[in-house]
Amino acid sequence: MDMQSPEKYLEEFFHTRIPVTREMGIRVAAYDGASLTLGAPLAPNVNDKGTAFGGSLYSVLVLAGWGLLHLKLREEGISADVMIHECDVTYSLPVRGDWEALGRFADNGGYAGFLAGFRERGRGKVRVEVRVMAGHRTAVRFSGSYAVIATS
Amino acid sequence: MDMQSPEKYLEEFFHTRIPVTREMGIRVAAYDGASLTLGAPLAPNVNDKGTAFGGSLYSVLVLAGWGLLHLKLREEGISADVMIHECDVTYSLPVRGDWEALGRFADNGGYAGFLAGFRERGRGKVRVEVRVMAGHRTAVRFSGSYAVIATS
Repeated sequence: MDMQSPEKYLEEFFHTRIPVTREMGIRVAAYDGASLTLGAPLAPNVNDKGTAFGGSLYSVLVLAGWGLLHLKLREEGISADVMIHECDVTYSLPVRGDWEALGRFADNGGYAGFLAGFRERGRGKVRVEVRVMAGHRTAVRFSGSYAVIATS
Repeated sequence: MDMQSPEKYLEEFFHTRIPVTREMGIRVAAYDGASLTLGAPLAPNVNDKGTAFGGSLYSVLVLAGWGLLHLKLREEGISADVMIHECDVTYSLPVRGDWEALGRFADNGGYAGFLAGFRERGRGKVRVEVRVMAGHRTAVRFSGSYAVIATS
């Protein structure tokens, strides 16, 4: 593993391998081993009401979960495909400026249980919860289940 | 109302008012008063696996529901804001090429009931079901509830 920070590595991965993330200006703000924060600017993602387009908000939410898993598996030296399987999203408040989305594993021991099963079977599912805040209130809540399949 | 087709009107609306839809190459394929079909090309929406990025798929799904409602309300001469409120999405198969998403109102008389309530109260919620097919199988299924609020 090189000296590049996980944030820089993941942002380059997004921009080169999922090119629309560059158009959306998605950046990787922070990773601490337990949570991942992505950010995006309003300007390229604006909708007809001058607020953030729901599809752009979703793209950042789904990538916060995907990126968290990708970085965790990379730390373990696991080579696997990660794919969103199902999710639900609730939009409670409009997002009127640049925003960040913070993703973390669901509270009920989600990641540890997943990892044990994955090591045995080479596949598994794990849930990530992601939020976009507007000040101190939740603007958008995302709960997504990701499928992980070993590739080697 | 001018002579422009609803498809052309809606596509111009997307491309000018939600600019990321132009980057994604989203087009309005067909509208028949009961369903709306949008399309998008794979190339600008590709992910690291060479298939369609989940966030781009979602953008087309959420806009198929939004656009269906927008066109129906426009036919009624109703001026209203339409906003996605909550949704759930299931990805069953990867999408390996250009794709289309077809949206229609939920079967249980969703739109007629919504419209009656909206005329009385100036607001309401209505559910739209949208699918992306891969051949004869459903690749992605979206069910979304939209909030509608009268603006005049």
